[in-house]
Amino acid sequence: MSSAPSPTEPPFRTVAIVGLGVMGGSLARALAELDSPPTVAGWSPIPEEREAALQAGVVSRAPSEWNDAVADAEIVVLAAPLRATCDLLADVATSAPPAATLSDVASLKGPVASAAAAAGLSDRWVGAHPMTGSEQSGFGASRADLYRGALVWTVAGEAASARVPAVHALWRSLGAAPVAIEPEAHDRLVAKTSHLPQLVSNALATVLAESGITPDQLGPGARDMTRLAASSPEIWRDLFAHRAPELAEGLRSLAGEVERLAILLEEDDLDTVGEIMRATRAWRRP
Amino acid sequence: MSSAPSPTEPPFRTVAIVGLGVMGGSLARALAELDSPPTVAGWSPIPEEREAALQAGVVSRAPSEWNDAVADAEIVVLAAPLRATCDLLADVATSAPPAATLSDVASLKGPVASAAAAAGLSDRWVGAHPMTGSEQSGFGASRADLYRGALVWTVAGEAASARVPAVHALWRSLGAAPVAIEPEAHDRLVAKTSHLPQLVSNALATVLAESGITPDQLGPGARDMTRLAASSPEIWRDLFAHRAPELAEGLRSLAGEVERLAILLEEDDLDTVGEIMRATRAWRRP
Repeated sequence: MSSAPSPTEPPFRTVAIVGLGVMGGSLARALAELDSPPTVAGWSPIPEEREAALQAGVVSRAPSEWNDAVADAEIVVLAAPLRATCDLLADVATSAPPAATLSDVASLKGPVASAAAAAGLSDRWVGAHPMTGSEQSGFGASRADLYRGALVWTVAGEAASARVPAVHALWRSLGAAPVAIEPEAHDRLVAKTSHLPQLVSNALATVLAESGITPDQLGPGARDMTRLAASSPEIWRDLFAHRAPELAEGLRSLAGEVERLAILLEEDDLDTVGEIMRATRAWRRP
Repeated sequence: MSSAPSPTEPPFRTVAIVGLGVMGGSLARALAELDSPPTVAGWSPIPEEREAALQAGVVSRAPSEWNDAVADAEIVVLAAPLRATCDLLADVATSAPPAATLSDVASLKGPVASAAAAAGLSDRWVGAHPMTGSEQSGFGASRADLYRGALVWTVAGEAASARVPAVHALWRSLGAAPVAIEPEAHDRLVAKTSHLPQLVSNALATVLAESGITPDQLGPGARDMTRLAASSPEIWRDLFAHRAPELAEGLRSLAGEVERLAILLEEDDLDTVGEIMRATRAWRRP
């Protein structure tokens, strides 16, 4: 009963997931598929999602109050939009056992780190940002393999460093690749790798839609390039707000690069266009 | 032996494919998987591709001279870059049986239609543009299901209209959806649906690369948004050249839309960003 956990055994025996959308629902599904699954309690503000998670057999409990869901958790994972994550953190800490690790999957880590520090929780919080997701929303779009092969950035202060190995082990047990990073470096990086591609997809979709083009006229290339344009505006709002100046700068760089290509085409300078394409080909296929 | 062909029987009993890269190789593979496959001869300028197609069992012959490959074809499909397609068309017509239908899979149709007209071949040419492909090149990247579910634009002049049903039947037998279109309308459309997304992907990859970001730091969203950045510069060169002013105009629209998003973020106008996202979400998920 008290033997050392095997490498395949998850490091937490009780997990609470607050939020059962794509991210939280997929976490519950992935945990349920482990050889030795932990006991998972889930909560969603949407009764239908709680019911769906219960019916899918991926949570053992889905109480209507989130403080009931976290009451016996060894780790609580907030899987909510950024603002809700920051707002809930202190209350969740109070309702969960005092020793419970607190985590989250929000796409920016600086604001959550600040919320944890403000609530005196820096010794309990190990944030995570799995670099995966879906343009769709809700438990219905969750899937057990969402995290398989995914890079997962993790963020923790010095005071919580002893909790990091268990959180990494949790993600590794799901087939993900956790990598520790500082919150500021993380947020600067994802403004480029995540927020910028999102808005470029929206911009391209806007141009195509305004040209009278319909999605059934797209091939796989344009479908991929506009997939993110179907993403939830609500989830992105807070993410954009926190890094707006930096994201605007990234957008201006992109606009400049696109303008440059327009000029090259107008000047019939296809050699330089070819050089740009060769450079991106080498970068994308290292 | 001379009974009417069944609906599942392909309309051509002998097919020649000139070019065994992703498009031609995939066509050979798809034809080979039919219940009642036609006899397929293939040709590539690359001896290794001819050998690979033979070894894969998807062509019955792969002679070293293309005129040998087309000698007994009921339909010749040129699966070459745009310029080679235009350059080869007249010679192919001479080497193929006089009744053979001539087709191609180039991504622009106006230049091929002009080449067909100039060679007096308007009564034999039915062009096609399957809206599918790969950012990779060569027979090694070909696959039997490339055309399954794909929209295939077809272009033919009045003089070749009697040949269109058989060409459509050929594509339908491979699970594709052929749709007839005028060459000018087609080329205007794909400048937006195909060429513009290609260069936007290159521009985004350039910005990310110049920020010191590596592809292993990307999630699935950014990976999708930069997949096309690995495409072949050689194949795109002629395509860009033919529609350069129009493509430049599309790029400027895109740059304008991206600039607009930058301004909205700088002005903290997240409501309008949300409206743009809601509009593209509705468009992309109709």
